[in-house]
Amino acid sequence: MIHFDCDYMAGAHPEVLAAIVNNNLVQTAGYGSDAFCAHAKDLIREACGAPEAAVHFLVGGTQTNSTLIDALLRRTDGVVAPDTAHINVHESGAVELHGHKVLVLPSHDGKLCAIELQQYLRNFFADDTHEHMVEPGMVYITFPTEYGTLYSLAELEEISTICHDYHLPLYIDGARLGFGLAASPDVTLPDVARLADVFYIGGTKMGALFGEAVVCTNPELLHRFFPLQKAHGAVMAKGRLLGMQFEALFTNDLYLRIGRHAVGLAQHLRQAFERHGYAPFIDSPTNQQFFMLPNTLIDRLLPHVSFGYWGPRGESESHVRFVTSWETTPEDIATLEALL
Amino acid sequence: MIHFDCDYMAGAHPEVLAAIVNNNLVQTAGYGSDAFCAHAKDLIREACGAPEAAVHFLVGGTQTNSTLIDALLRRTDGVVAPDTAHINVHESGAVELHGHKVLVLPSHDGKLCAIELQQYLRNFFADDTHEHMVEPGMVYITFPTEYGTLYSLAELEEISTICHDYHLPLYIDGARLGFGLAASPDVTLPDVARLADVFYIGGTKMGALFGEAVVCTNPELLHRFFPLQKAHGAVMAKGRLLGMQFEALFTNDLYLRIGRHAVGLAQHLRQAFERHGYAPFIDSPTNQQFFMLPNTLIDRLLPHVSFGYWGPRGESESHVRFVTSWETTPEDIATLEALL
Amino acid sequence: MIHFDCDYMAGAHPEVLAAIVNNNLVQTAGYGSDAFCAHAKDLIREACGAPEAAVHFLVGGTQTNSTLIDALLRRTDGVVAPDTAHINVHESGAVELHGHKVLVLPSHDGKLCAIELQQYLRNFFADDTHEHMVEPGMVYITFPTEYGTLYSLAELEEISTICHDYHLPLYIDGARLGFGLAASPDVTLPDVARLADVFYIGGTKMGALFGEAVVCTNPELLHRFFPLQKAHGAVMAKGRLLGMQFEALFTNDLYLRIGRHAVGLAQHLRQAFERHGYAPFIDSPTNQQFFMLPNTLIDRLLPHVSFGYWGPRGESESHVRFVTSWETTPEDIATLEALL
Amino acid sequence: MIHFDCDYMAGAHPEVLAAIVNNNLVQTAGYGSDAFCAHAKDLIREACGAPEAAVHFLVGGTQTNSTLIDALLRRTDGVVAPDTAHINVHESGAVELHGHKVLVLPSHDGKLCAIELQQYLRNFFADDTHEHMVEPGMVYITFPTEYGTLYSLAELEEISTICHDYHLPLYIDGARLGFGLAASPDVTLPDVARLADVFYIGGTKMGALFGEAVVCTNPELLHRFFPLQKAHGAVMAKGRLLGMQFEALFTNDLYLRIGRHAVGLAQHLRQAFERHGYAPFIDSPTNQQFFMLPNTLIDRLLPHVSFGYWGPRGESESHVRFVTSWETTPEDIATLEALL
Repeated sequence: MIHFDCDYMAGAHPEVLAAIVNNNLVQTAGYGSDAFCAHAKDLIREACGAPEAAVHFLVGGTQTNSTLIDALLRRTDGVVAPDTAHINVHESGAVELHGHKVLVLPSHDGKLCAIELQQYLRNFFADDTHEHMVEPGMVYITFPTEYGTLYSLAELEEISTICHDYHLPLYIDGARLGFGLAASPDVTLPDVARLADVFYIGGTKMGALFGEAVVCTNPELLHRFFPLQKAHGAVMAKGRLLGMQFEALFTNDLYLRIGRHAVGLAQHLRQAFERHGYAPFIDSPTNQQFFMLPNTLIDRLLPHVSFGYWGPRGESESHVRFVTSWETTPEDIATLEALL
Repeated sequence: MIHFDCDYMAGAHPEVLAAIVNNNLVQTAGYGSDAFCAHAKDLIREACGAPEAAVHFLVGGTQTNSTLIDALLRRTDGVVAPDTAHINVHESGAVELHGHKVLVLPSHDGKLCAIELQQYLRNFFADDTHEHMVEPGMVYITFPTEYGTLYSLAELEEISTICHDYHLPLYIDGARLGFGLAASPDVTLPDVARLADVFYIGGTKMGALFGEAVVCTNPELLHRFFPLQKAHGAVMAKGRLLGMQFEALFTNDLYLRIGRHAVGLAQHLRQAFERHGYAPFIDSPTNQQFFMLPNTLIDRLLPHVSFGYWGPRGESESHVRFVTSWETTPEDIATLEALL
Repeated sequence: MIHFDCDYMAGAHPEVLAAIVNNNLVQTAGYGSDAFCAHAKDLIREACGAPEAAVHFLVGGTQTNSTLIDALLRRTDGVVAPDTAHINVHESGAVELHGHKVLVLPSHDGKLCAIELQQYLRNFFADDTHEHMVEPGMVYITFPTEYGTLYSLAELEEISTICHDYHLPLYIDGARLGFGLAASPDVTLPDVARLADVFYIGGTKMGALFGEAVVCTNPELLHRFFPLQKAHGAVMAKGRLLGMQFEALFTNDLYLRIGRHAVGLAQHLRQAFERHGYAPFIDSPTNQQFFMLPNTLIDRLLPHVSFGYWGPRGESESHVRFVTSWETTPEDIATLEALL
Repeated sequence: MIHFDCDYMAGAHPEVLAAIVNNNLVQTAGYGSDAFCAHAKDLIREACGAPEAAVHFLVGGTQTNSTLIDALLRRTDGVVAPDTAHINVHESGAVELHGHKVLVLPSHDGKLCAIELQQYLRNFFADDTHEHMVEPGMVYITFPTEYGTLYSLAELEEISTICHDYHLPLYIDGARLGFGLAASPDVTLPDVARLADVFYIGGTKMGALFGEAVVCTNPELLHRFFPLQKAHGAVMAKGRLLGMQFEALFTNDLYLRIGRHAVGLAQHLRQAFERHGYAPFIDSPTNQQFFMLPNTLIDRLLPHVSFGYWGPRGESESHVRFVTSWETTPEDIATLEALL
């Protein structure tokens, strides 16, 4: 059986695991106040070209989103996001549980449109009754999006400019950031650091056991973050585990190596499907590929291959998702193609 | 100057005010545990044909909605509503502040479509990942809607049936319930009580100084409601004021008399506009009327008439709202028509 | 039957009620943006000697406390209060429902001790683990306290100085402020306005139908308060009712007249008890009087007099509370004394 | 340098780490729906003698407490705990952030007194105003306590009986449960499972990298727990890591072996101090030992030994805490004693 369900099915990339194993017996203080974390933060700041940035480590994506959104917003403000955003659909209402509304704009293959954002903000503040409405307090986008798509550098710059015109922090959910950076023709990590006010470098889906590194280039925005992180249950006692893993990911370019590996194989996978007449229904340059396949083919694959089933489309076809990761091999793609 | 801005511009209907004035010196216990409240609840139960219903008095509409939604939902569940719903647009995020998501479906002139509701619920529970999504825990509709429109009895029955098939309480926001009952060809107060699990009879917009009467025909749903009401800041020390006002509203049919008065004048107002060539852009049988007027006409009216401005539509026209209430007179309509 | 249960058993003082009745048919905009509110705010600012203060009107005490505490605190901060504070005991957890901890210090007949406050704050910030603890973000006291006692001017000044040394807003719950001002030998309304950052002038217990006027001498602290007030369900559609009532209360010194009336009668009541050998167990100079009475006396009074029963003390005595208000008369006191 | 600061300074016990390393490349479904978790749950149910119990894995202690308390309580209820409880002091207000009050009773060396609990509950429900107060909805205790002390079996039975008399779930925070079980003369894991409704078996402080296993012997209490866990940010994508670690901890009695190891060395440490005239100021049979030491001795130790500093007591002495763990060795104790 080969697996394309998602990018978090195995443990850690061997270089990441080695960092944990090799340092297992070292004793350090808790809660992230150790030398591993300090060094990992330095490596991240360097990779971002952001020597003044604050870096915080959290455990998982939903936790990171809901804690950061709670930290960045004033009490009654909301977060603007495309309607397909992970925070709006697949986080069990974590943003709302902590008191905030997700203010949705249309999604274009997962992306927010800068012009629609600007229009929404202009209309909001022009509305005489806006004090009775939830005020937009920040903007949330994902890079890459939930559909594997990417913003161009120009698109990110436009959105960033609009946010700053309205004094709204721009937050980028980078759960799969490394796949986006590996696939993008023009967006680099320093670009992300320059254009976002806060973003996170996803670890869980990029070869770590767990862990997300939040980067905040405007540290005033996260003034006194620790108590909020703790109250959200988002502080690890053995915080060093996060430091060790991100040290490994940011040593010898591992983070981008993992990104390039998975993205390269995803394109091979896409070409394999295309060779057999199955074009993707979204044009994704990253490690997630979306197809509409005949149910007969799906039935033929299922004994040998696992992947994401996204529901029927009509009588005889269904939407599916195939995902590659650091553990996918060229042999996996070949085996899959032999079954098509 | 004559006013059509909204239905809460003056104090109370004289019969309501008299109830407060005449009983001013009577001394009673606080927090609604007085004989006025007890009697008002009996009158309401009788008018609803619901002798077992629980009745609770709260102060205003946003407070009532957010307290009741918080009471009816489990911790992580959301409330399904059309996207134009008052709770989704004009309550400053009160639902989310208290931890819940508004799950929006398309609005059809303010109304939820039963078929779309059923489809949404079927798809939700069929989705394998639904435990990662906010589960619908109740359905919210308004009668009449924010656009003055009404559900037919058949439509209400359909929605109610779907809710009960899925074990979801149906909640009806009746901020302007009396105008809806006065205008509806087939929906009566006992129908509302029979089809909704919880609804409220709006007082503020129907001639009270303030006050909304929540009716719950399935009292188990609001088991131990008082502490939650108190924690929401929604208990009045002199709760008797709510009892006195609803006693008056439900004596000699005052509640429906007010509804019929305002609805009748609203139709006269509509006919006056139509006679001058301005058709409403929404077909509202109730006390709110919506027009697209030339800006030149608006400028001519403004020195003499106040009304709601809902923003420009194109270069030379704008959307406006005219609202009648217990204090509107036939002379007001005549004065307005003379200006058209 | 004569009533000493509490100070909110009747409707409104006749001068307050007249303001509502006389203006009943005037039409105004909603939500407090009317001329009555504007004038009432001016009168309050003048009475406080605080021409720059922001004034906000809310409906009831629990609502005011929980909304203001939510507005003043950062997300994870707590409010310091004596353990007998109303917010800690009798508000159904409204502060916690909205996300904040009440940090309790010992109560001395309802009062906070300045030295204990200072010691607590010094220890808190000296503790290396304080980021794992709830940080004090404001201080809450009541004037008069839940036991009818008063801070002296010197005590208020000490507490205010400590708060400002630690950059903590001092909030004074003035649900019964007028009784405190009437009874205090040295504290005036301008003193309260000078020493507190935010306080409220209670209306409900001082002769209004309902209503509390929040005064904030440092308006930056309540920047953008309206949406939070709305999301707490604490905005009245007919906000004018609050303006009209506070106009009346701050015209011809009515607020203090009511205070002096009730406080004077409370002292007569106390003397009546003392003449019969029942000394109060708390030395309260205000309108609440606390006695430990023989159960035989209580049984003898109950057919004729209502009052607060605070539970048994030993086998044959019980704690009780007697409260006077604007509606108490000298005859009520005489009737009571005849029964002792 | 030898370390006695706390029990989470190193990585994982080698047997736990091996489980993660050996299974690193196995691919499984996410979110805990894997065979490792299923097997670990079986092992835990067996060790608890509770074949019907529900088991849930979470990441850390604060997260576990705040998620479970939020799951067990009705919206406005509070959790009863001794005032020294971890949730009341050292979790940054996580319970309150999620809407609930901690209702404190006196702590007796960290323990709740059954008689005081009963008295509090009796008084609460006897109080006529109790609907205005936060209702106790569950009871929280720790085993061992924050001071290393233990309830006897009889004490646990008494508390459990009172809780069940009042229909309150009893929740036991077992962050250090294994140390308690190793040290207790009479309490076993099946006893804990029998007497608590919900408790957790701490992993982080007992040799895991992270992880806490919640056991609920009355699964109805945690009906539909997953969405709440997710909304609290408390679901791991690679949930298998929790399963693997608890499999290891509950294989070959490792959990209790770790407990006995650390508790045995803690008693040696205590005896070493006593031999030099320093008696503990709390009589703790578990792995935490508390002393009041001369500052001169502290200064002499600090270059060679790290431990917890709990603040000055008088001019020349201070409170300190020494903690042993799976990584403490007999040589560490000997080295320490040589320095006394």
